Amino acid sequence: MKLVLIRHGQSEWNAKNLFTGWIDVELSEKGKEEAKKAGKLLKEAEIFPNICYTSYLKRAIHTAQIALCELGWEHIDVLRSWKLNERHYGDWQGKNKNEVKEKYGEELFMAVRRGYDTPPPPIEESEPDFEERYPVDLKYANIGYHPKSESLKDTRERVIEYFYEEIVPSLLVYGDVMIAAHGNSLRALIMYLENIAPEDIHKIEIPTGTPIVYDLTKELKIKNKTIYNH
Amino acid sequence: MKLVLIRHGQSEWNAKNLFTGWIDVELSEKGKEEAKKAGKLLKEAEIFPNICYTSYLKRAIHTAQIALCELGWEHIDVLRSWKLNERHYGDWQGKNKNEVKEKYGEELFMAVRRGYDTPPPPIEESEPDFEERYPVDLKYANIGYHPKSESLKDTRERVIEYFYEEIVPSLLVYGDVMIAAHGNSLRALIMYLENIAPEDIHKIEIPTGTPIVYDLTKELKIKNKTIYNH
Repeated sequence: MKLVLIRHGQSEWNAKNLFTGWIDVELSEKGKEEAKKAGKLLKEAEIFPNICYTSYLKRAIHTAQIALCELGWEHIDVLRSWKLNERHYGDWQGKNKNEVKEKYGEELFMAVRRGYDTPPPPIEESEPDFEERYPVDLKYANIGYHPKSESLKDTRERVIEYFYEEIVPSLLVYGDVMIAAHGNSLRALIMYLENIAPEDIHKIEIPTGTPIVYDLTKELKIKNKTIYNH
Repeated sequence: MKLVLIRHGQSEWNAKNLFTGWIDVELSEKGKEEAKKAGKLLKEAEIFPNICYTSYLKRAIHTAQIALCELGWEHIDVLRSWKLNERHYGDWQGKNKNEVKEKYGEELFMAVRRGYDTPPPPIEESEPDFEERYPVDLKYANIGYHPKSESLKDTRERVIEYFYEEIVPSLLVYGDVMIAAHGNSLRALIMYLENIAPEDIHKIEIPTGTPIVYDLTKELKIKNKTIYNH
């Protein structure tokens, strides 16, 4: 059983150094190129997943589409869940990373970004620009979970829930599964798969547009991990 | 329950007047515009399907992607089946329609294109260019059905099988279902839904890039049919 993880490439806001989180920002041209590269690398490695998962966010959705198009393997089913979304960055969403660091201080900034259980400050519905920054999105109408900010730990809970609900059954039925998602939802999954301790997770940085392929036993033990890159 | 049908727009071979069938030809620029228009029409009509189906062919796959992108509704699951593929055009695939008409005569040409149970001549594995015209495609490795040509009746059998296997359960569970497919697979489905007799099916021409929306009862009776167009 192969589990293929792909972190989406540069988005239009990564390029501007803004926190994105659940805000649905498109890939930049560079990000689209990275997705194409991921597809090429899968092709060279002759890895043809039998099913694909993405988050609800278009930077992951389009990464999967572009990579599978490049692989010539677009006929597989693609299932999506908000549980694979990027971490919710609370009140920092849409804000410049340098300005946030200056306002909140290096310590909180690093604890949120690289730590395990520190969430950013939550979004506040009473703020005057709340409706503008958080327009009603029908996609999330029925999910029964509306985070106002998340720590990596919060993100991990929903990712691992989804892993057992959907991805493990697909691994067992289909064999090879691809997931196109985000820096933090994939860090959460890797932390779980590789049994990385919370105090070590800050060391884990996932390269964009680069297939990370786990060969797994039926007991979900890792036989091999290969990072496909040039 | 709403069933939304979208026939893909112009492909690169439609533009050249060639038979396509199961050959995996891309949409032309005009075809991509038609898909975008279909998404706009759904948006104006405020129709947001809960799940989407396509064939294994990229002209239908990309039509769904472009339309859902335009609708701002890309997070839904997309499932695919070869059973929604265009009719298999046998030996005529890749050939110019006018040349075929000249070689085989108006009568057979029309019986195949507009009739119900006349297949085109089958592909022959003994032909010298067979492997070039029918390269091995891993997508179809496990389907257990390798037509050498199909009548509309043959196409109808697999489409209606899939309708009951997958689409009816989804209508009952999710309510609104979208299908992006082909002239003949959609004609077969419409023939079934509207109870059109084989001798009348030649009258049914499905517009491209134009959502056809059936409002269905739980017993699959048609309450309303709306064709969204300008």
